Amino acid sequence: MSKTKEAVVSEGSAQERLDNYLRTVAHLGHVEISVNNFEKSLWFYTEVMGLVLTETDGDRAYLRAWQDFDHHTLVLKASDKSEVNRIGWRVSTKESLVLFEKQLKEMNIDFTWVEGGQKKALGDAIHFNSPSGLPIELYWEKELFVTNDPQLISKLPSHPSKFRSKGVSPRRFDHVNIMVNDVKKEQQWWTDLLGIHHRYYIQNEEDVRLGSWLSRTNIAHEVALMRNSNQNGAAFHHLAYYLDSPDELIRAANLMAENDIKIEWGPGKHGTSGAQFIYVIEPSGHRVEIWTGGFLIFSPDWEAIEWAPEIGQLGLEMWGSTPPESYFTYGVKIGE
Amino acid sequence: MSKTKEAVVSEGSAQERLDNYLRTVAHLGHVEISVNNFEKSLWFYTEVMGLVLTETDGDRAYLRAWQDFDHHTLVLKASDKSEVNRIGWRVSTKESLVLFEKQLKEMNIDFTWVEGGQKKALGDAIHFNSPSGLPIELYWEKELFVTNDPQLISKLPSHPSKFRSKGVSPRRFDHVNIMVNDVKKEQQWWTDLLGIHHRYYIQNEEDVRLGSWLSRTNIAHEVALMRNSNQNGAAFHHLAYYLDSPDELIRAANLMAENDIKIEWGPGKHGTSGAQFIYVIEPSGHRVEIWTGGFLIFSPDWEAIEWAPEIGQLGLEMWGSTPPESYFTYGVKIGE
Amino acid sequence: MSKTKEAVVSEGSAQERLDNYLRTVAHLGHVEISVNNFEKSLWFYTEVMGLVLTETDGDRAYLRAWQDFDHHTLVLKASDKSEVNRIGWRVSTKESLVLFEKQLKEMNIDFTWVEGGQKKALGDAIHFNSPSGLPIELYWEKELFVTNDPQLISKLPSHPSKFRSKGVSPRRFDHVNIMVNDVKKEQQWWTDLLGIHHRYYIQNEEDVRLGSWLSRTNIAHEVALMRNSNQNGAAFHHLAYYLDSPDELIRAANLMAENDIKIEWGPGKHGTSGAQFIYVIEPSGHRVEIWTGGFLIFSPDWEAIEWAPEIGQLGLEMWGSTPPESYFTYGVKIGE
Amino acid sequence: MSKTKEAVVSEGSAQERLDNYLRTVAHLGHVEISVNNFEKSLWFYTEVMGLVLTETDGDRAYLRAWQDFDHHTLVLKASDKSEVNRIGWRVSTKESLVLFEKQLKEMNIDFTWVEGGQKKALGDAIHFNSPSGLPIELYWEKELFVTNDPQLISKLPSHPSKFRSKGVSPRRFDHVNIMVNDVKKEQQWWTDLLGIHHRYYIQNEEDVRLGSWLSRTNIAHEVALMRNSNQNGAAFHHLAYYLDSPDELIRAANLMAENDIKIEWGPGKHGTSGAQFIYVIEPSGHRVEIWTGGFLIFSPDWEAIEWAPEIGQLGLEMWGSTPPESYFTYGVKIGE
Repeated sequence: MSKTKEAVVSEGSAQERLDNYLRTVAHLGHVEISVNNFEKSLWFYTEVMGLVLTETDGDRAYLRAWQDFDHHTLVLKASDKSEVNRIGWRVSTKESLVLFEKQLKEMNIDFTWVEGGQKKALGDAIHFNSPSGLPIELYWEKELFVTNDPQLISKLPSHPSKFRSKGVSPRRFDHVNIMVNDVKKEQQWWTDLLGIHHRYYIQNEEDVRLGSWLSRTNIAHEVALMRNSNQNGAAFHHLAYYLDSPDELIRAANLMAENDIKIEWGPGKHGTSGAQFIYVIEPSGHRVEIWTGGFLIFSPDWEAIEWAPEIGQLGLEMWGSTPPESYFTYGVKIGE
Repeated sequence: MSKTKEAVVSEGSAQERLDNYLRTVAHLGHVEISVNNFEKSLWFYTEVMGLVLTETDGDRAYLRAWQDFDHHTLVLKASDKSEVNRIGWRVSTKESLVLFEKQLKEMNIDFTWVEGGQKKALGDAIHFNSPSGLPIELYWEKELFVTNDPQLISKLPSHPSKFRSKGVSPRRFDHVNIMVNDVKKEQQWWTDLLGIHHRYYIQNEEDVRLGSWLSRTNIAHEVALMRNSNQNGAAFHHLAYYLDSPDELIRAANLMAENDIKIEWGPGKHGTSGAQFIYVIEPSGHRVEIWTGGFLIFSPDWEAIEWAPEIGQLGLEMWGSTPPESYFTYGVKIGE
Repeated sequence: MSKTKEAVVSEGSAQERLDNYLRTVAHLGHVEISVNNFEKSLWFYTEVMGLVLTETDGDRAYLRAWQDFDHHTLVLKASDKSEVNRIGWRVSTKESLVLFEKQLKEMNIDFTWVEGGQKKALGDAIHFNSPSGLPIELYWEKELFVTNDPQLISKLPSHPSKFRSKGVSPRRFDHVNIMVNDVKKEQQWWTDLLGIHHRYYIQNEEDVRLGSWLSRTNIAHEVALMRNSNQNGAAFHHLAYYLDSPDELIRAANLMAENDIKIEWGPGKHGTSGAQFIYVIEPSGHRVEIWTGGFLIFSPDWEAIEWAPEIGQLGLEMWGSTPPESYFTYGVKIGE
Repeated sequence: MSKTKEAVVSEGSAQERLDNYLRTVAHLGHVEISVNNFEKSLWFYTEVMGLVLTETDGDRAYLRAWQDFDHHTLVLKASDKSEVNRIGWRVSTKESLVLFEKQLKEMNIDFTWVEGGQKKALGDAIHFNSPSGLPIELYWEKELFVTNDPQLISKLPSHPSKFRSKGVSPRRFDHVNIMVNDVKKEQQWWTDLLGIHHRYYIQNEEDVRLGSWLSRTNIAHEVALMRNSNQNGAAFHHLAYYLDSPDELIRAANLMAENDIKIEWGPGKHGTSGAQFIYVIEPSGHRVEIWTGGFLIFSPDWEAIEWAPEIGQLGLEMWGSTPPESYFTYGVKIGE
């Protein structure tokens, strides 16, 4: 072992190094999706999934899981097309946004400032696209969920809204998954620019990166990048909510079956994350993952785990059925 | 909302601010306890709890949960007294220890360096006591768990050892709980010196702090500080391991009953953390919590939740039985 | 072992022996309770418990669990007093009722015939009281649950109504529990007259029977008889619905806490039946048990298990808190 | 509704009707299978499944689940072929065997008496074959499980052996499944001769019976008959053990994956029974089902539920993957 008792000389000035700490995201905050069947999708997310509807405003509905502390973690936008519009990340400090602006300028990446309040419940935000065209939104301020509804208020201050038995009732918003042509390139960009750690990845026999999973927080992934088998550009693969137990997962499967919601894949288990999952297709065509289990990563110098080709299949499906072809090819378009 | 689009002027030089980032802990790593019935306690932790015994070395046994990536998260030391010896925290960077040394000197806190290797599987470490006398160990390097045992090796690189069905089989080490005379003072010291965020607390009618829960990571608490009702100094209240589901909690209660291990309190639920728990007293008299549920905290500017006197009881016991008197008075001594 | 290969000579004529087979109950069917707060109790059973309301008719509401095949398993009757009115048992064959009539006459037990249709969804029935005054209703015919409600119809013919996530959503009605002065005497009467097998019992140090559990079916008990500590006559102790898992039990406790329903005892576990339970007091003062686990009894010559005094406590509480005093003294009166 | 208040005239003499009650089975008791890899199968059933080994005797091992009250519910016989040898049913009374003997003679069905003690732990038994050649064993007496092993003795008289956390640890033996050419004919024979009620069945578009499920007890099926797609005679499809929760099912899948046991199908759910299942192939090639959920049938005049062709698929797989072809064609031979 090295001698950490002795002072370590690090590269870079204090200011540069400080800025590197400040110019990071804190966590994934929300995703906005367009839905071509607003009414049916709203029914799905509120009645079947059991999310809480914070409010509707114009053509948008703002939703959250019962333990989500924020005003919303999912935004549905009525549209004639089902797309993803923005993937919102909270930054680490109130100084972060300006530092991101500076960095984006240096990298010649186009961005726009969105004034606080223009997006419901959000403060000032910066919008820009990843190399694959994924629409990223960075913000510092977001309203917390508060309610006067006696159906929702809990006496427990640890419960932003009451624990209810309505539909699937996941505990919290968890992650997003995106299909891109070049996983490795996209992953490095997210890690370098946003400070989102690389957690594990699968390689195929030709040493092509099939998937990478990243997180800034201690959960194993907040964003996953999967190789688009069709190689026809980026697409939004799924959004995910988290459950407290395998029992709740099986209950969710039962509710999907009783409500005629197609389970595309699962119940199954990813060896990589340990996620025990089902994937469903909601009425507007978005894929939604509901999952439980998995591990937390506490190590500050975590090295991304490689899932070599010979065990890559186990990483994808530790048990459960083989994924359907659609799982590797189907996603919704990136919105403009 | 404030204008985060505009640059914020922060106090302090870049170097000072950078050091504040570097001089923090990353996460709770392990706890070493002395046990006055080594044989029976080792049986309890391996056969009833189902922890993996990494190795024994002299008068010590090194243990971990199946998903713990490190060499150990619990150390048992054979002794004639049951005490707590050291509470180990990994620091955030390889530069952190030297910065902690500097800070401890400035605060006139006694400390000692422990050379890497003197403590099994650990690199250089600093030892010192909290104001209440709690023995803290800070380290940067710790060996990961590796094994050649076919009973333990998993094909899954996400599994540092095989998922087994042996005893309770918790997923991971979770937190420690300490009784002190003055919770508020102790909490502020831990937050100020170690950067461990304050997450929630209970006040009584006389505005006395009954408990505070703190974490550096996204889990709701890695260390809890509870008021010693006897006001006779610090004591080690319990260590905790985490389960994946309420089902596993009930299974754990069944195993405790079949193995004549006393359940001191529970099953019950803390409203504060949402922890669904049982507390057991192991053969050497240490209290062990086994729990599931609870929430993660992602917000970078989380404000500690106050549980006011009128709901404090709900924070302690959302449901389940009233805790026995012993829960507020019994703990093991701090080792020398 | 005996020689079962050889013919066994049994006592009694073929007719007598046949009648003994025919003059038995098949299973517990329902219970009717009066509630002094009809509105609030109806809210409890539908919204918190998640039972399905089949229909209301006059001052009565007819309820069932989602998997109960019958029209109802619970009847609420609006009243100014909370009482138990009738405990309904289905008999084994269409010939049984007439045989019961004959037997009751021989035993000089008062009874009344209730014409089919006078009680909602029931065919002809006989009403009479047990030695302790418990109101027994025997019937052969009862309507099945059928519905045209799209919220309730399932495509699965195994589901009399849809599996829903609403409140606790127990799978099925399970048992009733009654406090009496003399358990042993009452148990023998139920076994002798109704053919309900004796499954297990607890004796105290003075060889007094504290409780007996009986069933005609393979479930461990359909009716429990508990000693009234007050020795002031019979009272209705509780009715019980069954859950599929410990996870659902913990979820039920969470729902009770969020809805301000008092959990009188639990979560806990009876060693006798293996029932993992909570007992709640509903708004009209009836005790309701929600439980999971337990064993089935298949043996045709089962001998009742004795829980001797030294392990009786373990039979009552394998783990969990000590029952409150009210558990042994409180029940609702027997209706007239 | 009919007038059950009036006496019903039934056909047959009292003696004939009495004999019909006496000449029935009480419940499925055990199954004996030959295994071509005795050592590896024994490891599977004890270490992975977590069954208790009651004893080995010569070339046979006797096993049971922790809550099975009998000496054994599964017998493994070392052999060079994997086959099924006998399917044991306990009869309803000590008079039953002689009545069965009489009936078999009348039906010109070959049978043999096996003296008590010749089969381990069993009293006198009758052996004969079903129309498809399935080896049936009827018995009245069977030893209960008793033990002096401190690892197995529980203080709880409701626990014939301790609840342990070892492998899957199912609660109890549940059912057997057999593939035959003509399901309908075989079902009628089992119902008529043995008194095993018909519970539900699936028909295909050509009105051919694809499967029938039967039970004498309140569980939904103790024996299932499935159409052999190959139409090449009878084969033993699987044996099944029961778990207490969906959580335990997922845990079982994890244990199978870690121990390299192939999950042939599942996790999935049969709409018919509500069984949430996995099917695994053990080292000697026998299929074993592990399942939880499902409903009990209490009605004494239950009419078998028809799963018509348009919902038959839902009866087979309410959710989860499509069964592999092998599920409809693979079974082990009937032993001689």
